[in-house]
Amino acid sequence: MKLIGYFRSSAAFRVRIALNLKGLAVEHASRHLRKGEQFSADYVALNPQKLVPALVLDSGEVLTQSMAILEYLEETHPEPPILPKVPADRARVRALALICAADIHPIQNLRVMSYLRQKFGQTEESAFAWSRHWIETGFEAYEATVKDDPRTGAFSHGDQPTMADLCLAPQVFNACRFKVDMERFPTIRRIHAACMAHPAFAAAEPSRQPDAEP
Amino acid sequence: MKLIGYFRSSAAFRVRIALNLKGLAVEHASRHLRKGEQFSADYVALNPQKLVPALVLDSGEVLTQSMAILEYLEETHPEPPILPKVPADRARVRALALICAADIHPIQNLRVMSYLRQKFGQTEESAFAWSRHWIETGFEAYEATVKDDPRTGAFSHGDQPTMADLCLAPQVFNACRFKVDMERFPTIRRIHAACMAHPAFAAAEPSRQPDAEP
Repeated sequence: MKLIGYFRSSAAFRVRIALNLKGLAVEHASRHLRKGEQFSADYVALNPQKLVPALVLDSGEVLTQSMAILEYLEETHPEPPILPKVPADRARVRALALICAADIHPIQNLRVMSYLRQKFGQTEESAFAWSRHWIETGFEAYEATVKDDPRTGAFSHGDQPTMADLCLAPQVFNACRFKVDMERFPTIRRIHAACMAHPAFAAAEPSRQPDAEP
Repeated sequence: MKLIGYFRSSAAFRVRIALNLKGLAVEHASRHLRKGEQFSADYVALNPQKLVPALVLDSGEVLTQSMAILEYLEETHPEPPILPKVPADRARVRALALICAADIHPIQNLRVMSYLRQKFGQTEESAFAWSRHWIETGFEAYEATVKDDPRTGAFSHGDQPTMADLCLAPQVFNACRFKVDMERFPTIRRIHAACMAHPAFAAAEPSRQPDAEP
């Protein structure tokens, strides 16, 4: 398999963690999003969404959308699991994951920030404030959901990493770039620390990727 | 089970279709998003995300995030299926669903449009143009993905509705509200017509809900 990503992409970061957790060695390739390499004809032919990541299977089939890729990896390589067994618990984990993957990240990714600056003439500071607003709104919901629930353990659900943590850790990384005050989210901070102490998360960290830049 | 939704919410619309397809009768309740009823203390206690839908199980447990709810319904009520059997096909269906559910809808829903108007001082027309931009960007990707793929049938994947269609049909409904030129997306139009001819989709249509307004 080959993962086409970008070191700083939250969505690619999620998939890297899953591959590491499940012990899957894949070839890594990169598209430089800030240079617009996701718009090149050869990439668009692979992924008309012009987004990363894309996972190219050995069959040649191309999987897109990080959450669909995580589910695929879980179905084809179930050990160790990133979803619990009981359906209502699986729903809890997926809902936590989607707070980040649907209701934070898409609203404040590179293409949206570019629109704010180019079409609405917003300053860098006002685009940053936008980003912080959506991260904080999502993190308030995440914190409220995990803080007093007995199902929360060392990680967001129990004591092993799940899909929720795979989405949370990249979002916290991103929140730090946008100077979100993480003191407001003590449970998220605690879970994030547990994640980054885990070798599968640490090795997936953006600065440790071959395409990393300062 | 009780579904707490709002007639015009794309996310609630998805869940209504799934419930209808699977023949599950549930109690329906509504939170009027434009009146801010999702911010009332009793609802926030149920769903700290302050979004609809929420599915209250008979156990009292509350499920949130429409995509997590769809997966739950598929796991607990597998017939008729809304995902195919083969993992790579499941990934294709989920990726199509997520084009709408992650990369279009969250960027142009009510709370985001409100921010554009209130914080960035954008006009109604410029907020509409924003919405159209993200719908068209997503639909270009969706159209390119489905148009020549032999796995596309009467619906987005084969000849029965899947999770992809459950997300596409509400997004097309929304696109029409924002005056997107659907002539550009002939395959989406054809699939959407098949969806709306299906009783499970037709009965879930916003105008047919008890809380519908003109």
